[in-house]
Amino acid sequence: MNITAIKADNGVNVEALLGARAALTEAPEAAQFKWRATCDWVRGTHSRTTVQGFYGLGAEQPRPQAFHYDADHPELFAAEDNGATPVEYVLVALASCLTAGIASVAQNRNIQLRSVKATVEAGMDMQGILGIDSEVRNGFDGIKVTFVIDADATREEIAALVAQSQRRSAVFDIITNPTNVSVQVA
Amino acid sequence: MNITAIKADNGVNVEALLGARAALTEAPEAAQFKWRATCDWVRGTHSRTTVQGFYGLGAEQPRPQAFHYDADHPELFAAEDNGATPVEYVLVALASCLTAGIASVAQNRNIQLRSVKATVEAGMDMQGILGIDSEVRNGFDGIKVTFVIDADATREEIAALVAQSQRRSAVFDIITNPTNVSVQVA
Repeated sequence: MNITAIKADNGVNVEALLGARAALTEAPEAAQFKWRATCDWVRGTHSRTTVQGFYGLGAEQPRPQAFHYDADHPELFAAEDNGATPVEYVLVALASCLTAGIASVAQNRNIQLRSVKATVEAGMDMQGILGIDSEVRNGFDGIKVTFVIDADATREEIAALVAQSQRRSAVFDIITNPTNVSVQVA
Repeated sequence: MNITAIKADNGVNVEALLGARAALTEAPEAAQFKWRATCDWVRGTHSRTTVQGFYGLGAEQPRPQAFHYDADHPELFAAEDNGATPVEYVLVALASCLTAGIASVAQNRNIQLRSVKATVEAGMDMQGILGIDSEVRNGFDGIKVTFVIDADATREEIAALVAQSQRRSAVFDIITNPTNVSVQVA
């Protein structure tokens, strides 16, 4: 048995991703995606958002199933706690984006992962959204993400995985940089 | 029956929210919240994030139940589509935050809502996250939110509801303005 021939298997099809990169380099218009969600108000601060189709590779891309996400405020705010709060969904997005990136980069570098756990904490001064102090922003005052990773790699290799995931993360970019949002009534 | 006495009921306890605002105006340290999530890698780009406790009003705030959210990439990216993509979770966050805000503001203005539906669409040039073009950002190139609202109100009153929700939205702020994110390995 040749030890050096053992390939890491993190369950990421890196060949397909590298193939997609090659294909989209030749056809950049196919790289223009549209991600979508529809949200229905239920009652109070409770809503249900549905995620299903998206647009990419020049066509509508249906999914076999729709995903539904309930959001609400907790009982502390006199609400019914039917799901995570909207700001907690931002943390779900960030943690899952960085984690998927770590798995993909590890696969590409032939590093076997055993476990990856991210803990995310975001501070928020509620004086913002409650309108108490107009100098306080509505959103987070900062986010701290801490990874605990068990992998067949040195500490330096693990740190490099995390750094590369951060550099390529869509959600990290969305949170750390401004994005234009237009809101309209039909 | 006195028509003017009819109170709108959108299921939002505005009195409790106004009480919280009054209390936190007197005790701003109680307004310092910490929101949290923990994410476990499953396999490939599939992860499961758990949301439960948070810190606020000067104490840990347990929740009766934990919420679990699977994230993955779709089959188009040679993944298993076990949940919404991380970037779609950002859209869940934005839509649910604006919708909860509309319900709260409507309640405070005594406007009866019948239905609120938000459609969110975000463009993304995949040349960013695939590393094809370093001039292309990893995140969204913009987000468009369209509300369809049925309420006992004029078009102008409905437009004002949406505008006020946007002004007070934590997630709208997080997406449109930069937030510092620190990522570390334990």
